[in-house]
Amino acid sequence: MEVCKPILNTGLRGFKVASTKISDVDGDAGKLIYRGYLIKDLAGKISFEEVAYLLLYEKLPNKEELDHFKELLAEERQVPPEVILSLENRPKDALPMDILQAGTAMLAHHDPDAKELSLEAVNRMAIKLIAKFPTIVAAWERIRNHKKPIDPDPDLGHATNFLYMLSGTVPDAELTGFFDVCLVLHAEHSFNASTFAAREVASTRAHMYSAVAAGVGSLSGELHGGANTRVMEMLLDIGSVDKVEEYVKHLLDTGGKIMGLGHAVYQTDDPRAHILAPMSKIMGERTGDTRWYEMSKHLEQKAKEAFRRKKGRDIYVNVDFYSASLYYYMGIPTDLFTPIFAIARIAGWTAHVIEEQFGGAAPKPVL
Amino acid sequence: MEVCKPILNTGLRGFKVASTKISDVDGDAGKLIYRGYLIKDLAGKISFEEVAYLLLYEKLPNKEELDHFKELLAEERQVPPEVILSLENRPKDALPMDILQAGTAMLAHHDPDAKELSLEAVNRMAIKLIAKFPTIVAAWERIRNHKKPIDPDPDLGHATNFLYMLSGTVPDAELTGFFDVCLVLHAEHSFNASTFAAREVASTRAHMYSAVAAGVGSLSGELHGGANTRVMEMLLDIGSVDKVEEYVKHLLDTGGKIMGLGHAVYQTDDPRAHILAPMSKIMGERTGDTRWYEMSKHLEQKAKEAFRRKKGRDIYVNVDFYSASLYYYMGIPTDLFTPIFAIARIAGWTAHVIEEQFGGAAPKPVL
Repeated sequence: MEVCKPILNTGLRGFKVASTKISDVDGDAGKLIYRGYLIKDLAGKISFEEVAYLLLYEKLPNKEELDHFKELLAEERQVPPEVILSLENRPKDALPMDILQAGTAMLAHHDPDAKELSLEAVNRMAIKLIAKFPTIVAAWERIRNHKKPIDPDPDLGHATNFLYMLSGTVPDAELTGFFDVCLVLHAEHSFNASTFAAREVASTRAHMYSAVAAGVGSLSGELHGGANTRVMEMLLDIGSVDKVEEYVKHLLDTGGKIMGLGHAVYQTDDPRAHILAPMSKIMGERTGDTRWYEMSKHLEQKAKEAFRRKKGRDIYVNVDFYSASLYYYMGIPTDLFTPIFAIARIAGWTAHVIEEQFGGAAPKPVL
Repeated sequence: MEVCKPILNTGLRGFKVASTKISDVDGDAGKLIYRGYLIKDLAGKISFEEVAYLLLYEKLPNKEELDHFKELLAEERQVPPEVILSLENRPKDALPMDILQAGTAMLAHHDPDAKELSLEAVNRMAIKLIAKFPTIVAAWERIRNHKKPIDPDPDLGHATNFLYMLSGTVPDAELTGFFDVCLVLHAEHSFNASTFAAREVASTRAHMYSAVAAGVGSLSGELHGGANTRVMEMLLDIGSVDKVEEYVKHLLDTGGKIMGLGHAVYQTDDPRAHILAPMSKIMGERTGDTRWYEMSKHLEQKAKEAFRRKKGRDIYVNVDFYSASLYYYMGIPTDLFTPIFAIARIAGWTAHVIEEQFGGAAPKPVL
């Protein structure tokens, strides 16, 4: 669950470590704001590419700027064949987030920009990382299933490309649209743990790749990005709607934790959960199996009631709660949920590394 | 330069982020204390293995405990052949710290302990990482020079083994003794940037390898571990003792920074510099080229005088200042200075990850 854990046990919850112009979270009002824009005004209205542009360059792109940015991403989606070879040489049961961390570190080996601490170099590395993250994750999913990785298609957009590289088929517009919204929702969240890790590493003047590898490591923890995988495991474990109430009761009686509930910052609904839930519902109807959505809905309701009764306070679902069933409906393997979080958050991480090292945003996309 | 930079530009200098029982730094008195022992009472008196034991298990080992710990390290020095194969597949000009970060992430792929968050598992991963770090660094040094990596020798100690795997010959007792002291001096330094990064990642319940990979990333920055390499580059750049004074004057006039001077915590001599300087002197005499030591000594003196005159305050050399010439005399390539820092600091990082995740030290070494 994002930001649900203080940084360091004894430490930093509620302490303002630094300021950022990249995003703002109003936990009391349930607002997430990217560069001045409310998340609800972005999700479903603009693409992940536009959001990444906004986060990196401080403004929304016009048509020409967006086309140019998309071209740069298309140019950079390929991962060096030596990196793919190294992935093919990894044990098939390696955790996808561990593969992504190693892959990130390996990308540095191939990029002369890693040896140059300039605004131009970090700007280029940001584009390369945003472009290559989906390729690494999709390649690993195929490699571990003894399949050949699929090359990115320069004619496809960012969200579509990832789903295509994963399965070999281009999914329909509704599904890719939903997936694009997921990427937009997960792209940035101010000083969460992984962004903090990336900035901390960047503050020593280490290069972008080593900073981002730290972010990947932090996101892999079950108290951070790892939570969406855990939510789905919980749903699979419960199994059916009629068992939800008993599960909630048992967990609260034994002091257990319901995954996907509660947030360190939001003291009301997580604005992202509102956007994710209806998509999960539609995907349930599409697949003809509404169980996972209905279980989530019922679980949310029962957990809220039980919390109010037992603890005298409200609890709210967070971004991980409905993204779990949604990804599951999309046919994405459970242990790729967190890497998908990373595929989105890389936009935020790279913007933060640039802000940390150069005090502001990059001027415009270049390669 | 260790701890010379605040964590985050705007941020945390002087802010107590958390407490640790692993070490203490008294910046005013110039004292570094590992688990209650002053660094000056450890360096040159006990081996790196004993210090690693002390940091991890809170007490100095007796003879039997030390023998057992050394056996465990000897058992774990081998790196999986698939990881070596992946290193052989990396571009030869990749930065050694980037290789170490990728190597750390890859080790996770081979270790089932990475999938288990228990005190036993983190304890085992700590021993494995301490044992394998020198093997990865030495293997990379040989691979990039088109040589076959040398297997660790179970009969050699930790410091000796590394130098042996690097060159293929076992150096004499004086040299390995000095190198062992370097490892002891660099093993731990409380909440420096890299340790903070490792703990931050560990706080999300990410596993030891991903936390340590973040530490490696942070250490690679020129404001942290990367500084020792920069000190040597500066000495090579100056070239001779008679050019030192002009160099200092020029740098201070142009607002430049003399590498290896100043520290965020020590407001007096860094206690480690006192121990390193005489070893650099002896190694200079041994090799018949005292130039690098003499330049360092002269640079220290001239910089101190200039600082006092120009800024009205004192400046002190830090741990990176004399370790640079010392490693250079040992024949170690300049860009391995920071990986050697990591080979030592892995003891501190692993102890901190255990403390972060389990609130204390590991009980005793097990595999």
